[in-house]
Amino acid sequence: MATLKQVAAHADVSVQTVSNALNAPHRLRPDTLERVTRSIELLNYRPNRNARSLRTSAVELIGYCVPSWHGGQAHLVMDQFLHALCAAAETTGRHILLFTAPAGADGMSVYDDLHARRLVDGFVLSQTETHDPRHGWLKDQRIPFVSFGRVWKESTQPGPYVDVDGAGGCAMATRHLYDGGRRRIGFLGWPRSSGLAEDRLAGWRDACVELGLPVDGLAVHCVEDTFDEGARGAASLLDAPEPVDAIVALSDVLALGALRELNRRGLAAGTEVALTGFDDSPLASVVSPALTTLRQPIDLIANELIDILTGPDLSEEPVERLLQPELIVRGSSAPG
Amino acid sequence: MATLKQVAAHADVSVQTVSNALNAPHRLRPDTLERVTRSIELLNYRPNRNARSLRTSAVELIGYCVPSWHGGQAHLVMDQFLHALCAAAETTGRHILLFTAPAGADGMSVYDDLHARRLVDGFVLSQTETHDPRHGWLKDQRIPFVSFGRVWKESTQPGPYVDVDGAGGCAMATRHLYDGGRRRIGFLGWPRSSGLAEDRLAGWRDACVELGLPVDGLAVHCVEDTFDEGARGAASLLDAPEPVDAIVALSDVLALGALRELNRRGLAAGTEVALTGFDDSPLASVVSPALTTLRQPIDLIANELIDILTGPDLSEEPVERLLQPELIVRGSSAPG
Repeated sequence: MATLKQVAAHADVSVQTVSNALNAPHRLRPDTLERVTRSIELLNYRPNRNARSLRTSAVELIGYCVPSWHGGQAHLVMDQFLHALCAAAETTGRHILLFTAPAGADGMSVYDDLHARRLVDGFVLSQTETHDPRHGWLKDQRIPFVSFGRVWKESTQPGPYVDVDGAGGCAMATRHLYDGGRRRIGFLGWPRSSGLAEDRLAGWRDACVELGLPVDGLAVHCVEDTFDEGARGAASLLDAPEPVDAIVALSDVLALGALRELNRRGLAAGTEVALTGFDDSPLASVVSPALTTLRQPIDLIANELIDILTGPDLSEEPVERLLQPELIVRGSSAPG
Repeated sequence: MATLKQVAAHADVSVQTVSNALNAPHRLRPDTLERVTRSIELLNYRPNRNARSLRTSAVELIGYCVPSWHGGQAHLVMDQFLHALCAAAETTGRHILLFTAPAGADGMSVYDDLHARRLVDGFVLSQTETHDPRHGWLKDQRIPFVSFGRVWKESTQPGPYVDVDGAGGCAMATRHLYDGGRRRIGFLGWPRSSGLAEDRLAGWRDACVELGLPVDGLAVHCVEDTFDEGARGAASLLDAPEPVDAIVALSDVLALGALRELNRRGLAAGTEVALTGFDDSPLASVVSPALTTLRQPIDLIANELIDILTGPDLSEEPVERLLQPELIVRGSSAPG
């Protein structure tokens, strides 16, 4: 297929003139317009999805801060998320501008600068933190944004968000373990300061209570999301006077740490102790047994984010979309 | 909102001087800079992206095509790479524009459009394929680019690249296993059509020959980079009349598939059969035993890429930089 550039060369005009012929024909002299139109027809050029945005010569760029990576804490589904976000943006003629920024309030000057210089027209936030300062700041500045993830511990959300129902997911995992005959189900979480962790903890707890299962002393707050902490947390659940027969972990990382601990003790994961994670990261299917986990609907999340950010109703009541994860059952909870 | 022209009139300087005040303040005399800055503040001027064209030192965007993700084939260190690439670009005042494109020649119209519309000023390529059509095309179009990874099976490289010495890395792993007492070392690779695989295979083979170790029948060409293929390949090396006592895998994914197979057979990885991977992905440290692997120097790679792309010598002899990976020794090859 011909490109915009080839059409421009064929008609002996600039790329911008071809763009104008497509989007603002009144700006061209009739003979120029006719020449360009003929070239478009001869070369069978079909403006692609991006050409729309040439109209105002301001393709809109959407800023996304790429999270920094620390040894123990990998963003295991970030590549899937970024591809999905890019693809969703491109269906609207937009692109993603990646940048780095310090965490928290220290990073706001980077967001401010990118927007003030009109390098980006809005932001997709992720890696949302408790009392995340970015959302309120962007709202105050009237800079368009949408968040993948809620801002925890706020009574009302400071803007539109898309999130995955972590509580619902952990309740789903708990009920699945119960259906498999488990009656003493522990929970591996993060510190109480994490709203995300408290949400998933509540999903496990509510499901246990509803099913008549014990919860006292069965929730471990791991210090951080590492394999070592998952192993340590699992050890404490297994060393208790009444050991657990199943573990719901709030992340694949913690679950795989727990799996390491089970292997170390010679306990058969899936038969002696059942185990579930959260994320369906690439890790989940490599380990033995493979990990039962909750899969986030990444494509749907990306589409919703772009839909909200580029939609007409950003100034209206904030849009809040809570999507259900899917339980992917594997050997760690269903042997055989 | 004030325009650049209004600011220039207010400060009694040229439009170019205002642009310099914003983008290259060191070029201005201090009193001029102060006067322009005051006008910018008084008029509450916010430079927009249209001003880019007025600048000589415009913010440059660098295009990077985000690879698509397929179930079995995760890009395990892509998040690290993207963060490093962004950070490196930002030290030069540039940003990364992410986009998606079909693989191979079908994607070239996307690259062409992005450049023709001046959305990006150059590209960083990765996920380089054998006979990758992008490099030659970009070179012909005189569009600046640099490649993370060589274009295999070409007699000369069609442009500048940074790559990691896969042959050197696999030779390093082989010598490490030899030093640990292993004398029958197998290799898990990819199909012969992959230049990268042939390179790493050669590193293993040359090291074995140099050390006086057998190679015949000890190289398995896995069909794809999946855990299942790694397990299948390891099984064939273990089922041979003379089974291997060690395996060099050309990727962490294959190595972890092999590890799963060892676990399944009750063979102690690290003691009975030693094992190495390639990438030091997040996977490598979660499994039990943890995986000995070759770590790519991601930050250095990113810095070199940006350095080459933004350097003055793109039109000169292509720059070729081959970096050594680091052997990270863990329990899969050195128990205890």
